Amino acid sequence: MLSELRSGKITIEEAEQRIRLLAIREMEIACLDLSREARKGVPEIVLAEGKDDASLKKIVEAFLGESGRVIITRISEERLEALRSGLKGNFEVKYSTVGRVAIIRDRGDAYPERRGAVSLITAGTTDLRVAEEARFVLEEMGCTTHSYYDVGIAGLHRVFPAVKDSLSKDVDVIIVFAGMEGALASVISSLVPVPVIGVPTSSGYGFGGRGEGALTAMLQSCSPGLVVVNIDNGVGAAVVAALISRMRWKSKD
Amino acid sequence: MLSELRSGKITIEEAEQRIRLLAIREMEIACLDLSREARKGVPEIVLAEGKDDASLKKIVEAFLGESGRVIITRISEERLEALRSGLKGNFEVKYSTVGRVAIIRDRGDAYPERRGAVSLITAGTTDLRVAEEARFVLEEMGCTTHSYYDVGIAGLHRVFPAVKDSLSKDVDVIIVFAGMEGALASVISSLVPVPVIGVPTSSGYGFGGRGEGALTAMLQSCSPGLVVVNIDNGVGAAVVAALISRMRWKSKD
Amino acid sequence: MLSELRSGKITIEEAEQRIRLLAIREMEIACLDLSREARKGVPEIVLAEGKDDASLKKIVEAFLGESGRVIITRISEERLEALRSGLKGNFEVKYSTVGRVAIIRDRGDAYPERRGAVSLITAGTTDLRVAEEARFVLEEMGCTTHSYYDVGIAGLHRVFPAVKDSLSKDVDVIIVFAGMEGALASVISSLVPVPVIGVPTSSGYGFGGRGEGALTAMLQSCSPGLVVVNIDNGVGAAVVAALISRMRWKSKD
Amino acid sequence: MLSELRSGKITIEEAEQRIRLLAIREMEIACLDLSREARKGVPEIVLAEGKDDASLKKIVEAFLGESGRVIITRISEERLEALRSGLKGNFEVKYSTVGRVAIIRDRGDAYPERRGAVSLITAGTTDLRVAEEARFVLEEMGCTTHSYYDVGIAGLHRVFPAVKDSLSKDVDVIIVFAGMEGALASVISSLVPVPVIGVPTSSGYGFGGRGEGALTAMLQSCSPGLVVVNIDNGVGAAVVAALISRMRWKSKD
Amino acid sequence: MLSELRSGKITIEEAEQRIRLLAIREMEIACLDLSREARKGVPEIVLAEGKDDASLKKIVEAFLGESGRVIITRISEERLEALRSGLKGNFEVKYSTVGRVAIIRDRGDAYPERRGAVSLITAGTTDLRVAEEARFVLEEMGCTTHSYYDVGIAGLHRVFPAVKDSLSKDVDVIIVFAGMEGALASVISSLVPVPVIGVPTSSGYGFGGRGEGALTAMLQSCSPGLVVVNIDNGVGAAVVAALISRMRWKSKD
Amino acid sequence: MLSELRSGKITIEEAEQRIRLLAIREMEIACLDLSREARKGVPEIVLAEGKDDASLKKIVEAFLGESGRVIITRISEERLEALRSGLKGNFEVKYSTVGRVAIIRDRGDAYPERRGAVSLITAGTTDLRVAEEARFVLEEMGCTTHSYYDVGIAGLHRVFPAVKDSLSKDVDVIIVFAGMEGALASVISSLVPVPVIGVPTSSGYGFGGRGEGALTAMLQSCSPGLVVVNIDNGVGAAVVAALISRMRWKSKD
Amino acid sequence: MLSELRSGKITIEEAEQRIRLLAIREMEIACLDLSREARKGVPEIVLAEGKDDASLKKIVEAFLGESGRVIITRISEERLEALRSGLKGNFEVKYSTVGRVAIIRDRGDAYPERRGAVSLITAGTTDLRVAEEARFVLEEMGCTTHSYYDVGIAGLHRVFPAVKDSLSKDVDVIIVFAGMEGALASVISSLVPVPVIGVPTSSGYGFGGRGEGALTAMLQSCSPGLVVVNIDNGVGAAVVAALISRMRWKSKD
Amino acid sequence: MLSELRSGKITIEEAEQRIRLLAIREMEIACLDLSREARKGVPEIVLAEGKDDASLKKIVEAFLGESGRVIITRISEERLEALRSGLKGNFEVKYSTVGRVAIIRDRGDAYPERRGAVSLITAGTTDLRVAEEARFVLEEMGCTTHSYYDVGIAGLHRVFPAVKDSLSKDVDVIIVFAGMEGALASVISSLVPVPVIGVPTSSGYGFGGRGEGALTAMLQSCSPGLVVVNIDNGVGAAVVAALISRMRWKSKD
Repeated sequence: MLSELRSGKITIEEAEQRIRLLAIREMEIACLDLSREARKGVPEIVLAEGKDDASLKKIVEAFLGESGRVIITRISEERLEALRSGLKGNFEVKYSTVGRVAIIRDRGDAYPERRGAVSLITAGTTDLRVAEEARFVLEEMGCTTHSYYDVGIAGLHRVFPAVKDSLSKDVDVIIVFAGMEGALASVISSLVPVPVIGVPTSSGYGFGGRGEGALTAMLQSCSPGLVVVNIDNGVGAAVVAALISRMRWKSKD
Repeated sequence: MLSELRSGKITIEEAEQRIRLLAIREMEIACLDLSREARKGVPEIVLAEGKDDASLKKIVEAFLGESGRVIITRISEERLEALRSGLKGNFEVKYSTVGRVAIIRDRGDAYPERRGAVSLITAGTTDLRVAEEARFVLEEMGCTTHSYYDVGIAGLHRVFPAVKDSLSKDVDVIIVFAGMEGALASVISSLVPVPVIGVPTSSGYGFGGRGEGALTAMLQSCSPGLVVVNIDNGVGAAVVAALISRMRWKSKD
Repeated sequence: MLSELRSGKITIEEAEQRIRLLAIREMEIACLDLSREARKGVPEIVLAEGKDDASLKKIVEAFLGESGRVIITRISEERLEALRSGLKGNFEVKYSTVGRVAIIRDRGDAYPERRGAVSLITAGTTDLRVAEEARFVLEEMGCTTHSYYDVGIAGLHRVFPAVKDSLSKDVDVIIVFAGMEGALASVISSLVPVPVIGVPTSSGYGFGGRGEGALTAMLQSCSPGLVVVNIDNGVGAAVVAALISRMRWKSKD
Repeated sequence: MLSELRSGKITIEEAEQRIRLLAIREMEIACLDLSREARKGVPEIVLAEGKDDASLKKIVEAFLGESGRVIITRISEERLEALRSGLKGNFEVKYSTVGRVAIIRDRGDAYPERRGAVSLITAGTTDLRVAEEARFVLEEMGCTTHSYYDVGIAGLHRVFPAVKDSLSKDVDVIIVFAGMEGALASVISSLVPVPVIGVPTSSGYGFGGRGEGALTAMLQSCSPGLVVVNIDNGVGAAVVAALISRMRWKSKD
Repeated sequence: MLSELRSGKITIEEAEQRIRLLAIREMEIACLDLSREARKGVPEIVLAEGKDDASLKKIVEAFLGESGRVIITRISEERLEALRSGLKGNFEVKYSTVGRVAIIRDRGDAYPERRGAVSLITAGTTDLRVAEEARFVLEEMGCTTHSYYDVGIAGLHRVFPAVKDSLSKDVDVIIVFAGMEGALASVISSLVPVPVIGVPTSSGYGFGGRGEGALTAMLQSCSPGLVVVNIDNGVGAAVVAALISRMRWKSKD
Repeated sequence: MLSELRSGKITIEEAEQRIRLLAIREMEIACLDLSREARKGVPEIVLAEGKDDASLKKIVEAFLGESGRVIITRISEERLEALRSGLKGNFEVKYSTVGRVAIIRDRGDAYPERRGAVSLITAGTTDLRVAEEARFVLEEMGCTTHSYYDVGIAGLHRVFPAVKDSLSKDVDVIIVFAGMEGALASVISSLVPVPVIGVPTSSGYGFGGRGEGALTAMLQSCSPGLVVVNIDNGVGAAVVAALISRMRWKSKD
Repeated sequence: MLSELRSGKITIEEAEQRIRLLAIREMEIACLDLSREARKGVPEIVLAEGKDDASLKKIVEAFLGESGRVIITRISEERLEALRSGLKGNFEVKYSTVGRVAIIRDRGDAYPERRGAVSLITAGTTDLRVAEEARFVLEEMGCTTHSYYDVGIAGLHRVFPAVKDSLSKDVDVIIVFAGMEGALASVISSLVPVPVIGVPTSSGYGFGGRGEGALTAMLQSCSPGLVVVNIDNGVGAAVVAALISRMRWKSKD
Repeated sequence: MLSELRSGKITIEEAEQRIRLLAIREMEIACLDLSREARKGVPEIVLAEGKDDASLKKIVEAFLGESGRVIITRISEERLEALRSGLKGNFEVKYSTVGRVAIIRDRGDAYPERRGAVSLITAGTTDLRVAEEARFVLEEMGCTTHSYYDVGIAGLHRVFPAVKDSLSKDVDVIIVFAGMEGALASVISSLVPVPVIGVPTSSGYGFGGRGEGALTAMLQSCSPGLVVVNIDNGVGAAVVAALISRMRWKSKD
């Protein structure tokens, strides 16, 4: 290119432009490799809500082709049934009515080896829909999950059995789902020697009731040991929990 | 007036105007009596902040003249000293450095008879300044106060002694002051059979840190038995606590 | 355990783990007893909204089994009918169409003894739905209720009869429900010698119209004697009102 | 121009450009005349805050030259003194320490003829600083003002004398200044047959305490007859009040 | 009563209670008279939304019985038809499909004498629904209305004809309705010598699009001569406009 | 007019009024010309949402009559079909199902000459609906568009091909549409030497999820070279992009 | 590396790690080149506020070494003087007292060739400080600037001369600075055929007064042709304006 | 106690009261043990701001007595010096001027064994003050830290070396500090296979500039693998990072 430039075949502007494009091309390839590496073990997750049937099917097929499994969130049972009947191949489907979340996986694929444990503690029954999404992601990433429901600080006595059982099962992380009593995460974090991830849920009421109240309470916590994800983001919490859990199986020094 | 109207001495408009004024005059008197009654036992409280020295002195003298005592909030020790030295009469002064609150009372006056008990529980040391205002008001309204400091839910074990001691002293109300962990009020409310008043304080940090976080958390609480006042409003919480406490001494029919 | 530890049967880690679990077990029991005590007399309250029919029925049956009565909020008449027809036993049902709230109670149970009085004052007709929830809770907790509707400060003359009647009936607490004119609570509080609980309702309009306007106005009130609960939280206000009312029947000194 | 265009002396683009400029020039003149007309009787008002001494002096001199008077807001006594001593001419100066507002006027000028009456009612003493700005503007626009201070709805009995006196003086408008109890404007509006202008002030506390609480309460009011200006905007309220007051002296057809 | 007290027939407490009740009774009567006076000429206005058919009918009948007319807002044509067919008497009905507002009036009643003029200027067609409510109220209060639609500042040339026509018709007040371009009110206010009332409407989009953007812009205006009501509050703006318009017909001293 | 004034045929008031009206008339004409000029080349755009069928048809016919083309946003396919079948004339219609946007144009009209290029980069598939509106406007204003979908910074490797391709096509402006990852605009802006316009979309979730999060992130960007429009305002971004693109074809000096 | 892997010298993990690092290294170089290209002509800008003297000097020296010039914002005259006296070399310094912004440039360097024109229109005098920052950046990027001050829509007549003069000077972009009347940008945008950039400034008052009011108004604008940057971000607006202006000098195909 | 009850020595109420107190006493002990365990290895951290010298000294002495070390945040060098000179014993002090954070430790104590690695990446130099707090906490908890400064996404090329170096050092967690470009955390999280903790800092500007913008951007991230703490909460992020890092040294079953 430089010789073309010198010989006047291309202008300086054109040369600059070509260099610029070359640089980007290189970044593209490097970055692609890197991202692929970073996501190793994280299953593909598709949000069904807001996608029409044709698009959804196309995306699901693409992911199944690539990795043999896909998690679909916010999907009704009817829609899932319609989707599945249109897929070619031998797939296994798992669905949660409460969480409106599904996993489709190639029957031939080996199940992920269980190698870590995470507790899911919800403050109220309406928080279940978010916890179910987290449970599906965690299990696909090889974690054993332990679930405790209706554990609000307004009934502090229900908090203790959940904490006790989690500790006796030597969990690596605890995820707390709460819409009103965001402080549940804070209370639990003060009692355990493992990281706690708070998931505020949009199940409060009145002022601050769409989850902002719980979010703020979790952010304000004095309890070191607590981190937070966005409102209703059970999926995000689950991925981080699995990443942390994975630590224990990495080689030391 | 009606005869004047009929005889044409005054117009209908003038008559209407007079009736209107008469009505208001009557309301004024009735309302004054009523308010006086409603506030019986509630001491006069003056906010020193934002008032110049002359105005402050005039208001304080007026209240001392009327009821023999006055509570002054947000006042520095120097300013109080200057104020007191200018007052004529034999007054007793009590001051809290932390709360920047003072009581001036006629030495001749009898102390209020102690007839109720209220617990003051603060989550952090910075909440003390608000709690001190409440303590001064409560004591002037005849309540015994019990104070517990640095009782945060991040250290849940410090919550229990405060609750235990309060119950053993048979308090009528518990006031909880918290800037970050608004849920402390919720936790305590779930453990006691008396009303709890939450006072969010402006001592948090970051998002929601000027007390809105604590306020929202208290409002979102699932714990029935908890009511709330505005951020840093220790005075308001104290007055309501005293009104509730007074209930026990009212005659039963 | 210590001997096992010394003899090497268990590691220090295991011993620590066991102690930790033991501690939590003890807390659990103690806390359960305490909470049970604290809630004595407070009826079980179930929010029907957001629960499917099967879950609702299960919870209702559990509560009926335990305490012989349950309050259900946000439930339609049809859904209540379906629920009731599926229950085994001889139950009495009370329902409010406006408040969409129901009480189911064992016919054999004695009615709660009436031992206190609370006024319910609503600013507008749309606030009724919240006031009805409070009325049901109060009556189940043994309080006589007096209701005054459409008492807005834009028509100040309608405020006085409500206050007058409340005082003549010697009520212990006044609950004020207001969506736009949050200041109604402030006005009433300035006229009466009893605690006032403000319930902001989501019935305003435009800026601040989902209840935040009323909430802010109530929090900003200069009237000592006023406390607040979250928007539309009639249930919470009622429980605190009943707790306060109960004070009068507790033994003195 | 068109002939120049046809003869090719100027391009179409140039012609278009010229027409565009001509149009704007015409608008400029027309608009200037109109604005001058619209502001007839409204005194020039300068905000001293945020202007350096040189700029302030230049603006003040310009306005004095044009109309013989100027109102200066947010100015300290020292700064005013320095400003005045630098002015050439025979001016009369009026200053309010509380409101930090001044009027400078040509001694030769006739005082504005008094032709309307406006009430200024403030909820607290800290609202005075805003009310003083309004009073200065009103008096310069020929209105008689009647001031009532410390009229909060927490002491409803203080509201009535202010209303009564205002009505007996046949005021055309009432301006209500309130920082916490925004509802004072609503209460007064419900009692009088004249327009009420609410001025929220930044003198509340805690949640909503920088005036937003009062602003929201005034906007939420059910009382038709109430309009609002921005927080601390006493000047704006005064100008509108004077415009309304002027109505009575306009000729009826 | 005092003799009963002296003779011991009643206790001091009972006497106090009686005095309290008497005072309120007097306030009630006085306040009622006053409010009635203040609202003279303001028609009764009922919000249909959120009221069931039976309640609506009862309220409408009551108002028709008292004053012979009633304005109903937020009502569909079908619902109005159903309501009217159930009314006894000879009524005339006027309805606006766009504004969903109706007037029902006794056919025997004289039309209100036209005695003032108000301009209604809307920025977009979606603001019409709010402007129609204002028009109905204004006409019932005796004002002539002039309407100008689709007058946004993005097309500044459409602003001028509306202003010109309003001035040539000598209107007393201009009401500006705008959802996005709140500054339209500011622009108009700078061009006219009469008060302008801004009504922000909930017809914007994106950030600030539910009317808060327009509200803030109107509050921030530098144009003295502009006051504001809450979002979509066409009724409130109309009542104040009519009160101002009325000024011109009041007698000058 | 002045002679009429002198001869007393008209009063000074009437003369003033006439001058005022004359001034406005002139402004109106001048402003109209100017606006017409300013919008040269910008197609008429109608928002179908919130307009009834009759009004929509009337507006569309008016615009078609004036300029031979019109863009209609937020319109369903059915509604468009109904509208088109009612139009008289020979029109060509283009429609986007995803963007719910249509163009109707006179078949006789020449297509706009392509004279500039703009890239449209969307972070997620749900942002497509906004990007399609922009694409329609850009193409009607003579710009070639290049679209890149699903380019989120969570998958940074997908960003580079979009940037590379845009640069190789020498685009004048890049428009970035993003609901969650507002920072995509910032990243792209740091890599290209052309202006970037950020369009936050309402397709996020939880806290800040209605587009405020993306808006704030774009406003907070440190990357000079980035400007922003309101949430979902694809139309506005497209018009500015076309104006910028036009620059290159304007004559220099 | 692959041979090392095959021969077992390194593990698969190590090989993966090395590939990952290699990829990032490539991206780093490519990205650096690209960014350098993208910023060609944009001067280095340093925010003095929040940096201590030593750090500031180090950064300034680095930039002067690289490109021979640097713009420093938010710097006092004293601090600038101290900084300059410590620099080695022959530099020319330009400073704006109002804008607190400085340029330091190598005396040997040629001045940037003027090749574009931008108008700066400010609504109030307090907006000047932001406009000055923009002016410095624009001039360093080779643009001629035209400034118009105190052009508020409350005095619409002052808007026209600014627009007229800008058009007659054939500016490429107009930047509008406004703290209260954000709509000034909207008005101007409707009158001109060039892009307008709105810069909200933090010079409003009361509700929305820290610039959010102006920001919202600008975002809500119906005027296509307007884009926005963050509050007080004069620097960002200037860079984009210069980029747009540069368009005209790029070669047309 | 039961025998006392049966024999009538105590009433049922007294017995209930005693049981209640006993239960709380048990909880207190159990909870204390548990919390102690949970915090093992987390150093005591004292916020100096808002505490007077005497209190600060008392707390510091207590912590030094208990655990031989204490971290003090938000403390000036002078204050630290004064504090240290008053302490009895042989202490070692480490201080960061930028972070205003200090560690005081018993000279006799062994340094914590380094057993984990954490990267600290800051977007701007002003974020350093928060990062320094995190670094002090991490090092006291035995983690090796790697710091990368001024890594903003506006200069994407600076991101890659930081990521590359972190990966080559096999860090367990990356903490990202950003005030404006919250998305930096998102970008980094998409490139690495370890958990990322985002710390929004209060160093932005304009709208969303006190850290809310960065907080929202981090919460909105699509990148699973990212969790968040409150604005400026470097201490909290550090504790969680250390807890995660510790995982790798726990025994695998």
